[in-house]
Amino acid sequence: MVDTSAKMPTLRRARARGEVHTSTRVLQELRRGTMQKGDVVAVARLAGIAAAKQTATLIPLCHVLPLDHVEVDIDIDSDDDRIRIEAEVVCRAATGAEMEAIVAVLIAAATVYDMCKAMDRGMSIGSVELMQKSGGQSGPWRRSPAPGRTKLRRNP
Amino acid sequence: MVDTSAKMPTLRRARARGEVHTSTRVLQELRRGTMQKGDVVAVARLAGIAAAKQTATLIPLCHVLPLDHVEVDIDIDSDDDRIRIEAEVVCRAATGAEMEAIVAVLIAAATVYDMCKAMDRGMSIGSVELMQKSGGQSGPWRRSPAPGRTKLRRNP
Amino acid sequence: MVDTSAKMPTLRRARARGEVHTSTRVLQELRRGTMQKGDVVAVARLAGIAAAKQTATLIPLCHVLPLDHVEVDIDIDSDDDRIRIEAEVVCRAATGAEMEAIVAVLIAAATVYDMCKAMDRGMSIGSVELMQKSGGQSGPWRRSPAPGRTKLRRNP
Amino acid sequence: MVDTSAKMPTLRRARARGEVHTSTRVLQELRRGTMQKGDVVAVARLAGIAAAKQTATLIPLCHVLPLDHVEVDIDIDSDDDRIRIEAEVVCRAATGAEMEAIVAVLIAAATVYDMCKAMDRGMSIGSVELMQKSGGQSGPWRRSPAPGRTKLRRNP
Amino acid sequence: MVDTSAKMPTLRRARARGEVHTSTRVLQELRRGTMQKGDVVAVARLAGIAAAKQTATLIPLCHVLPLDHVEVDIDIDSDDDRIRIEAEVVCRAATGAEMEAIVAVLIAAATVYDMCKAMDRGMSIGSVELMQKSGGQSGPWRRSPAPGRTKLRRNP
Amino acid sequence: MVDTSAKMPTLRRARARGEVHTSTRVLQELRRGTMQKGDVVAVARLAGIAAAKQTATLIPLCHVLPLDHVEVDIDIDSDDDRIRIEAEVVCRAATGAEMEAIVAVLIAAATVYDMCKAMDRGMSIGSVELMQKSGGQSGPWRRSPAPGRTKLRRNP
Repeated sequence: MVDTSAKMPTLRRARARGEVHTSTRVLQELRRGTMQKGDVVAVARLAGIAAAKQTATLIPLCHVLPLDHVEVDIDIDSDDDRIRIEAEVVCRAATGAEMEAIVAVLIAAATVYDMCKAMDRGMSIGSVELMQKSGGQSGPWRRSPAPGRTKLRRNP
Repeated sequence: MVDTSAKMPTLRRARARGEVHTSTRVLQELRRGTMQKGDVVAVARLAGIAAAKQTATLIPLCHVLPLDHVEVDIDIDSDDDRIRIEAEVVCRAATGAEMEAIVAVLIAAATVYDMCKAMDRGMSIGSVELMQKSGGQSGPWRRSPAPGRTKLRRNP
Repeated sequence: MVDTSAKMPTLRRARARGEVHTSTRVLQELRRGTMQKGDVVAVARLAGIAAAKQTATLIPLCHVLPLDHVEVDIDIDSDDDRIRIEAEVVCRAATGAEMEAIVAVLIAAATVYDMCKAMDRGMSIGSVELMQKSGGQSGPWRRSPAPGRTKLRRNP
Repeated sequence: MVDTSAKMPTLRRARARGEVHTSTRVLQELRRGTMQKGDVVAVARLAGIAAAKQTATLIPLCHVLPLDHVEVDIDIDSDDDRIRIEAEVVCRAATGAEMEAIVAVLIAAATVYDMCKAMDRGMSIGSVELMQKSGGQSGPWRRSPAPGRTKLRRNP
Repeated sequence: MVDTSAKMPTLRRARARGEVHTSTRVLQELRRGTMQKGDVVAVARLAGIAAAKQTATLIPLCHVLPLDHVEVDIDIDSDDDRIRIEAEVVCRAATGAEMEAIVAVLIAAATVYDMCKAMDRGMSIGSVELMQKSGGQSGPWRRSPAPGRTKLRRNP
Repeated sequence: MVDTSAKMPTLRRARARGEVHTSTRVLQELRRGTMQKGDVVAVARLAGIAAAKQTATLIPLCHVLPLDHVEVDIDIDSDDDRIRIEAEVVCRAATGAEMEAIVAVLIAAATVYDMCKAMDRGMSIGSVELMQKSGGQSGPWRRSPAPGRTKLRRNP
């Protein structure tokens, strides 16, 4: 565990994203809200928020951070047969909240999987990445658009 | 939460996989075991096992399952600039352990991210998927090797 | 902690209820789904289910039970200015699930309070009671109607 | 989750109360300390304190607060056949500790129920309410006496 | 994590012990029940029971066991300036409950330390050992008396 | 729970130690890294760090502290047939981190026990003690050497 005792707390923001790839049929049911297990998007958003608060329990060397804000957004993207998830975390702390944002995305994605798996066991969770972060000594960081890389993931 | 009270426990197995894409430099340090935060593979394996045991706390509608076995394997695949993670979960229960296997992979992957992010914030977690499961009324299921399918995931 | 090692597991059911008394204005916003913090009923239901799974962590002398089913129902009762909550828990265990049902109701009620408190800090949680339970040596139990008492609680 | 990152921490206090209605016989055993499961009041107080520390795990949209103090008081009120519970929580935070106080009362009450239910399954938890809170932008708040309502609850 | 899926559950018992060495003054206050932080023995017993239920969260490779019984006994032994702690755990499981008994003793001991440390920071926790276990393929095991060793520990 | 709301946070350090006494054979396997359950030292260190973060959940009257640093060191001491464990915790808080250091040592020790118990059920955890602490009103404290006592423990 990195020693943060010599660092003063600063405002930290981190934003992560991810995707769940599934069948057209699952996406239709999600959009109609007819999925048997209930309101998938609402449940997955809550699961992501709750998981962000548990990050230091899940990731062995993470510090417990006093989170000021967690937001999880979930969109059903019919054009690409996928559900898109984004999470933003804000806190005032001596270390960053990147892991909180990533964990929120991962557990929201796993919850989507859980609630739709009866219809499609073959779903795939992917492209879980930090998009940007700010605050702290290393300052702001933003994912480079990296068209090649994105392209690769999307069209290899 | 699905009512499982009328189902008898049967032997259940579930196997999931996933990947962390990172830079050649990170992979080199991982192979040499010189990563500053410590033995990444050992820490990530433990984090995955511990997370599998917490699945019902993380995924809102999951049952608490009495896990008989959790195994997490992590390989550094230099040819493809990625770390490959696989998890297998075994239990005797009235419902399957797919989510336990997926959660183990996700949190092992997040732990790899956490321990390497100082060198590469741009890492990406992807292709997290159920590979196979057995047991229960729906019987065995195996991900179709399906180059076509993989292709589909890669070329939407 | 009571020693249950000599008892065989039997099918157990427990049903509990409770109420949150609040203002007419809060109930209107709840019915319209315009409460600023989001879908109160959906969040409270999930919180109740999650709490049922944590009962043995919260209630010091409770056993960890392998729950087969948890259901939380929430109704907005405009005639009496209250939100009614019911929870049912089913499991196959050597001891009953009464506490799981009661904890589900209590935490669902607290979640309603949390999400509405900006509009009405004076809300009151009450009448949290076991309604019925079955299974185990003591057999079925059902709350007696107790009309006088119910009447008072219903028409203050 | 409300974004609290623009608010400075201030001293916060919250006080909540609640009641457990039970039979005269249970109250006698409680006063004599002869309840089979042990010292009910001591166990319930600890359960309430522990639960206050878990509030952000239990209530989905609650922030994790660095609690400075939690106190739970439990009185056996023979005149009205009830156990009265009060909890006070103090912290320095950007948001209030009302939920921590309410959760402490609820779980202390549930623990009383658990330890006495072998004698009286018909116990009822009620009148769980915020009594007062101070600190924060909205300033101090105090429950209005509301004599009529209290009377009804106290003399059913 | 050892794979227990081929083993049938059997009745398991495990008993562990431990000691907290402290000053005569602390022991006197404990016996009189005048310790400022409250009833040390009652709090430590509960902490031990609660910790036993959390064993699989604390010890990375432990299975989650459905505990049937946990008992923690604490005696103040004035002759030897120490507090003696014993824990017994019973369950029906495919693997033993030794770790549950040991964790119960350790956390009960740590709780004693916490509640008395204002008077004696020099307290020492020691001789935490499995006393006996039964059930499972390896059958019963009992700690050999080992008089010499015990003597040394008892007469420093 | 002690009320810390009137105290300003200061830098706190606490250091604790402990030992696991075991057979020469277990120590040899540990040094060779051939223990069947895996890398005992790595797993025990992580378990100690994770447990330090859970201290307020385990020890009933402990405050939740925002830990800046936790370090757990484990040495295999062949001369004395024991494994030595030390933990250091640093935080900026209104109360000390002694319990976090002690809990880290205890759970690291229990994890060593768990991973070696198939070879030696007779292992003993002992001499768990605070070594020093600094920060807060009471200022620095350091364990007095106490040679006689140490000697006995070291040469049984």
